[in-house]
Amino acid sequence: MTVKIFPTARDAQNAFYEALERADLEAMMTVWSEDEDIVCVHPAGQRLAGQAEVREVWRQMFASGPTMRMRITQQVVIAGVMLEVHSVHENITIAGEQRPRPPMVATNVYLRTAAGWRMIAHHASPASVQPAAEPPSASPKILH
Amino acid sequence: MTVKIFPTARDAQNAFYEALERADLEAMMTVWSEDEDIVCVHPAGQRLAGQAEVREVWRQMFASGPTMRMRITQQVVIAGVMLEVHSVHENITIAGEQRPRPPMVATNVYLRTAAGWRMIAHHASPASVQPAAEPPSASPKILH
Repeated sequence: MTVKIFPTARDAQNAFYEALERADLEAMMTVWSEDEDIVCVHPAGQRLAGQAEVREVWRQMFASGPTMRMRITQQVVIAGVMLEVHSVHENITIAGEQRPRPPMVATNVYLRTAAGWRMIAHHASPASVQPAAEPPSASPKILH
Repeated sequence: MTVKIFPTARDAQNAFYEALERADLEAMMTVWSEDEDIVCVHPAGQRLAGQAEVREVWRQMFASGPTMRMRITQQVVIAGVMLEVHSVHENITIAGEQRPRPPMVATNVYLRTAAGWRMIAHHASPASVQPAAEPPSASPKILH
């Protein structure tokens, strides 16, 4: 396996959601920092810390194969030299369903490492329902 | 008002939860980065970005005065030179109630700024219920 280098945090994030859609465990773990210092909170509220815990729960989630399409909206980026925080809405459509489920709000934290940008924390939970009048934000809102 | 300097991310976090308990809006905003680049997700799922939005919702939450006691457990710290991520369980007891509510899981991201350590992101959501057999972790689990 070649080691993947993500030149930007956005590249790492794209790879994260592609791995989720493809239910590809190795691609998913390539996005994460190789350090033991990683934290992942899935929408059900279980907090996972360290490589083994994080990997095991993705493995369980991916066991039934690709089942989700992800559309990322309402992105807010906090960009630093060594760190980026991407706050997004995840609009998830389950295979066989016509419409996306109510959105999740996710906080994704990326660190610039010797091996490029990697995820160190992911926290997703149900978003409050947006008013129907609000237009979907196609372009990311970049604060910095 | 004197500007508060937090020499460590832990100091900033202690001030964050003290401000929450005291419903002290000015103390709360002193914990946050002075940049526009801040993001806050409360357990109901509303994502707030920028100083004005973040401040306004804390103002609303604090309008009825101090109502909560916070006990922080199961802390995992990801520590870098310029950045720390603290993942914690928030055990919240509401005034007049005997027992804490079911815990929240929070991801707190701190940045080392010219004005000391400041919060740049807070994401809290309901934690999955822990098995009763698990002992409460009194001491923080530090990975790094």
